[in-house]
Amino acid sequence: VLFYQPEVLTGVTWLPEEESRHCVKVLRKREGETITITDGKGFFYTCLLTQADDRKCEFSISAKREVPPKRYHLHIAIAPTKSPDRMEWFVEKVTELGVDEITLITTDHGERTFLKTERLQKMAISAMKQSQQARLPIINNLTPFATAINHTATQKFIAYVEYTNPLHLFARAKPHEQYLVLIGPEGDFSKEELALAMAAGFEKVSLGDTRLRTETAGLAAAHALSLKNVL
Amino acid sequence: VLFYQPEVLTGVTWLPEEESRHCVKVLRKREGETITITDGKGFFYTCLLTQADDRKCEFSISAKREVPPKRYHLHIAIAPTKSPDRMEWFVEKVTELGVDEITLITTDHGERTFLKTERLQKMAISAMKQSQQARLPIINNLTPFATAINHTATQKFIAYVEYTNPLHLFARAKPHEQYLVLIGPEGDFSKEELALAMAAGFEKVSLGDTRLRTETAGLAAAHALSLKNVL
Repeated sequence: VLFYQPEVLTGVTWLPEEESRHCVKVLRKREGETITITDGKGFFYTCLLTQADDRKCEFSISAKREVPPKRYHLHIAIAPTKSPDRMEWFVEKVTELGVDEITLITTDHGERTFLKTERLQKMAISAMKQSQQARLPIINNLTPFATAINHTATQKFIAYVEYTNPLHLFARAKPHEQYLVLIGPEGDFSKEELALAMAAGFEKVSLGDTRLRTETAGLAAAHALSLKNVL
Repeated sequence: VLFYQPEVLTGVTWLPEEESRHCVKVLRKREGETITITDGKGFFYTCLLTQADDRKCEFSISAKREVPPKRYHLHIAIAPTKSPDRMEWFVEKVTELGVDEITLITTDHGERTFLKTERLQKMAISAMKQSQQARLPIINNLTPFATAINHTATQKFIAYVEYTNPLHLFARAKPHEQYLVLIGPEGDFSKEELALAMAAGFEKVSLGDTRLRTETAGLAAAHALSLKNVL
């Protein structure tokens, strides 16, 4: 079991309320027991419980270990689906598989969304803990398409459903880059959005022969880029 | 929109009840209109509606097109998760991404499952239609581990969480093979199961640096093998 306290580096030595409850009430940890905490910023801390309070569980750090940073940065900018479940699922799965940054984007053919970034943050924290990782993906607020395409990256892709386009993301990606991939809504990007992205240096790519739902496309893109860096 | 009638090749010229209802009641198709049907066996049929009955919608075939078979066969044998949702989600996603065969397996550390194969079949049909494909994955009934490892394949892998094992599935797989991948439960395969699989010619592989949930591991394995055949 992994606990989360984002402020360890700034000197905080207690768990947030929900984590305290889980540690003390659910797992019944007591003073003197050892737990592992991550700050979501690349560190694992081995900690001794000094006060097993179920609202503010205090600890002292006995060891600290930094996970070496990955050699690539993976940013998926995606049009939210109508169903919030599908986006929550997307965040959970790409966090498990190792994404660095997620931006929800508003697009010409997109659904209106009332999705809360806070809810997605929670999914990401839970998936990070579940998959035993020390880095929490950044989840940006809803961003207009025209702004999202100005994010910094060394390889920029736009997934576009077009049967005359044989270039697969996996074939075009190089290892050890800063990737930004745009994933459109069910109705795909508009011609104007595609033109804007191309003018901003994005490359049009396919994600395979089958027609994927938005959240599956986002996952497939993230996993393909992560595999590009595996070997 | 794609409709499903598995028995077109045997001469059936009407849609099943649920598909008829969807075609006539929901989409309000009428006699003389054209629809596309797949049999899930590799064919798309362009059909003319001859009787728009919402319980037995009849059609005549005006054209038939076979989708060329893939150059590989992808079979995932997976220990079912406790939550049926996660397995249903798994079936949906691997169908979208293009799996050929799914077997649920009973394992030493697995959860008891009351999962109905029929329910998973429905998910697969719906995902096949959604992703505009003409081949429905085979979903086998719950199978004991010792039986599942005797399935035919030219490349057989067992995903096993072991930090001393650096070989990634993606690095070990060759294109154009018949793959069988075993995915274990949250508690992983037992040492005995691992030994049985190794004796049966399976290769132990990793799916990456992060610890994946069962259904995510199954999805990652399927997608990695599909990417191996993309280029």
